[in-house]
Amino acid sequence: MDISLLLQQLHDGEPRAIARAITLVENQEGEAAQILAGLDRQRIEDVLILGLTGPPGAGKSTLTDRLVGELRQRKIRVGIIAIDPSSPISGGALLGDRIRMMEHALDRDVVIRSMATRGRLGGLCASAGATARIMAASGCRVVILETVGIGQSEMDICRLADLTALVLAPGFGDDIQAMKAGILEVADLLVVNKADQLGAKKLQLDMGTVFSDPQDKEQRICTTVASEGTGVATLLERIFLFEELYRQDGRLQERRNRSFASETLDWAMELVRVRLQAKLATTPLQSIEPQQAARQLLQTLDGE
Amino acid sequence: MDISLLLQQLHDGEPRAIARAITLVENQEGEAAQILAGLDRQRIEDVLILGLTGPPGAGKSTLTDRLVGELRQRKIRVGIIAIDPSSPISGGALLGDRIRMMEHALDRDVVIRSMATRGRLGGLCASAGATARIMAASGCRVVILETVGIGQSEMDICRLADLTALVLAPGFGDDIQAMKAGILEVADLLVVNKADQLGAKKLQLDMGTVFSDPQDKEQRICTTVASEGTGVATLLERIFLFEELYRQDGRLQERRNRSFASETLDWAMELVRVRLQAKLATTPLQSIEPQQAARQLLQTLDGE
Repeated sequence: MDISLLLQQLHDGEPRAIARAITLVENQEGEAAQILAGLDRQRIEDVLILGLTGPPGAGKSTLTDRLVGELRQRKIRVGIIAIDPSSPISGGALLGDRIRMMEHALDRDVVIRSMATRGRLGGLCASAGATARIMAASGCRVVILETVGIGQSEMDICRLADLTALVLAPGFGDDIQAMKAGILEVADLLVVNKADQLGAKKLQLDMGTVFSDPQDKEQRICTTVASEGTGVATLLERIFLFEELYRQDGRLQERRNRSFASETLDWAMELVRVRLQAKLATTPLQSIEPQQAARQLLQTLDGE
Repeated sequence: MDISLLLQQLHDGEPRAIARAITLVENQEGEAAQILAGLDRQRIEDVLILGLTGPPGAGKSTLTDRLVGELRQRKIRVGIIAIDPSSPISGGALLGDRIRMMEHALDRDVVIRSMATRGRLGGLCASAGATARIMAASGCRVVILETVGIGQSEMDICRLADLTALVLAPGFGDDIQAMKAGILEVADLLVVNKADQLGAKKLQLDMGTVFSDPQDKEQRICTTVASEGTGVATLLERIFLFEELYRQDGRLQERRNRSFASETLDWAMELVRVRLQAKLATTPLQSIEPQQAARQLLQTLDGE
């Protein structure tokens, strides 16, 4: 394979080259390292990785769609990484996503990739980070990392983002008190979506109690009606406002450093997993407890 | 610490000794290996690890409660491992669980342990497996592994079980068609809970389409109204029926072998993680991409 040609096409925004590069990295092919090393560092520096998370039913997909619309109006090229939870129960969501995205599917400046959490989370985090950088190198100024659900897995994925918006809708308000600390740990912006529905005002007030600083309350809580596009332009302005702030005060760099360390660990673990699995298949283990067996397994690895 | 005394008390069913042993294993203390190696193998052989999973709202907690009641009526000692998803949104569930379990909290023959998925899943799976064996050694004939939610993480946890029941309730039926393959991969028994509610009949019929064999349809689908205790005794009989079947046809042993391998890998990965994290904190990495950095990191580990 001609890697330098692939890289050139990727940087020109050629959809097939981008898709191919992502697949090679996902599958940990030998070419992956060379591709990743050849990406335009300035574009990676300049991209904003925006995490969008929240419980199913809060309207994240519609909101993502509207945000993409706003970005495209401003001639901004955008990438979307949709993390599919791969749960049999919510399996239908993925299909919905795909249909939804058809609206932007013919737009060359909207790069879409779905990823499944089926398999190991560490591998997914590593792949998602690399995918965001490939999209950035292809000219995307913003990459939206959309996760369905807000379990621990989603939190881990959010750590890849420079900035995260938590999307809620009326009906989820009762848990706010319990989750206060959790929210602040994860979200820079709180979005009250479906703001035209009953209970939206109460949800907004509840969310207000998360912040003690009045300015935070003002700036970090946004209301939207994504289905009608209401409030989305303002949300996007806030996003860019916080990006600017975080770039200036060093928080963005700090998060990227942390994310670099965590991705490095994830990759290392994935590489070790492959070696351990191979060992496990060929090593006769003599213990009755997995913990002892694990130590035996590591000794054979160290003894190589 | 006097490990042999701890082990003796544990085998006598002494609650504090059991709790202490589990904590030592969870925290990967030095004593863990000795404790695990000292557990009664026959009791571990004889225990049934029953996975109970399903979406939030299906009534798993109530069903678990009723199953425990049925087991206790039969003088069977039982362990419960409740996996808390640690999601800020569903954080309230845990508290509910704890209150619910108060009913059995004073019963010395009901051993309860909650575990959080906060942190790494691999570590949780390893701990949950070891906890089930500690409970078994303490005399529990059945250990119920209750997980909230049915994402990928829950599937991974279910692999620890000898037998898994998927609990659904009316309102979740629409997804059945989409999740057919997924269900069979995970569940031995399908429980239609809240069978007195509207839509239960349809859900039952939908579930029937999952099985092509009429006998499977008959035996693997159970209906319950957990809130009233209806159908729970029958469900328990079915559980024991399948346990017997799986013990005889070798499926139980096969699952345990698979689970042994996967737990061994999880433990090994956890041990490696600790070493890698220490390395990461002290190694100056010279690459611009995490994947390369990971390789550098592994080289320093190998070079030891």
